[in-house]
Amino acid sequence: MNSTALPLVVLSEQFAKLPGIGMKTAQRLAYHVMSMSEEEARAFADAIITAHSTVKECSVCCNLTEKELCPVCDDDRRDQSTICVVETPKDVTAFERTNEYNGVYHVLHGLISPLDGITPDMIRIKELLKRVGSGDVTEVIMATNPTVEGEATAMYISKLIKPLGVKVTRLAFGLPVGGTLEFADEVTLFKALENRSEIN
Amino acid sequence: MNSTALPLVVLSEQFAKLPGIGMKTAQRLAYHVMSMSEEEARAFADAIITAHSTVKECSVCCNLTEKELCPVCDDDRRDQSTICVVETPKDVTAFERTNEYNGVYHVLHGLISPLDGITPDMIRIKELLKRVGSGDVTEVIMATNPTVEGEATAMYISKLIKPLGVKVTRLAFGLPVGGTLEFADEVTLFKALENRSEIN
Repeated sequence: MNSTALPLVVLSEQFAKLPGIGMKTAQRLAYHVMSMSEEEARAFADAIITAHSTVKECSVCCNLTEKELCPVCDDDRRDQSTICVVETPKDVTAFERTNEYNGVYHVLHGLISPLDGITPDMIRIKELLKRVGSGDVTEVIMATNPTVEGEATAMYISKLIKPLGVKVTRLAFGLPVGGTLEFADEVTLFKALENRSEIN
Repeated sequence: MNSTALPLVVLSEQFAKLPGIGMKTAQRLAYHVMSMSEEEARAFADAIITAHSTVKECSVCCNLTEKELCPVCDDDRRDQSTICVVETPKDVTAFERTNEYNGVYHVLHGLISPLDGITPDMIRIKELLKRVGSGDVTEVIMATNPTVEGEATAMYISKLIKPLGVKVTRLAFGLPVGGTLEFADEVTLFKALENRSEIN
């Protein structure tokens, strides 16, 4: 016999769907929601709905934003001729924290990974080629993670862009190989950005 | 300059309020919500609202339930003369998992803790005394955690109940002292239940 109220079980299962949250933690989070005030619970639920319904991809760089253009693309002080290509919106945040990069971004929303069934047409490569083809771009920095998929995606994209006469560079391997961008500290990221090398 | 969309920042802050969730994890969870479908995000938000608005305390034992009576109090096969007093609804779930306890529960929703400003009138002791005073109860099992606050609360309640002529017992210390009920395995919990001793 189950002594837990059904709505609590449902809520626990919702939490358990989140990455890195097991069933025990999910239960604890569900009970925590019960201890919230009416307004706090409503604010939490509203934040989910609002974020999900208002945040879309920037029409230029595919970063997540609630406007037509993300703050970076919309800023005319940013150098629009340099595009830093990253896997996820989190990586944009990581680069912005360095306060050293003045170009713009392009968010792929994934990496090519045949084993996971992710082919080049499933990530935002088409949109990147369209931007590069417009003629104003002089450099594309491949800033995907230093993993097998990240390297493969960087190589794939550089082979498509180089024939267009645009310089393609790769982040320097100051990054610990096999790690992820998200957890790199600011100095390491800045060094990796500074020592970027051209893909031959 | 902040490159993260405001609704995402708001959602991250909501996640970061949950126990054991830091800002990095909160951000990852927020981005995960963005990758959900419309229906999934809505189901998540609805689960929070539904759990918070429909789940109340059982009118008898104060366990959380969506009905007037929780499934344990509502089950006439349960022995209503034995009350197992626990701190949280999670502890009820832990005891139910042993499949060995046939009495009913009383959920205190906290422990007496003067250092945290929690006095006896802030937890469900009044409701417990009312149940015990009704005359049908023959044994009260103090099943609070084996911590300083848990011990103090057990002693406090037993001193109030013993003058009523009701037997008060305490879980056996098969439980690792200083640990919490929530993470005890079924066998340890059953042993602790079986070897309970009277408070003198």
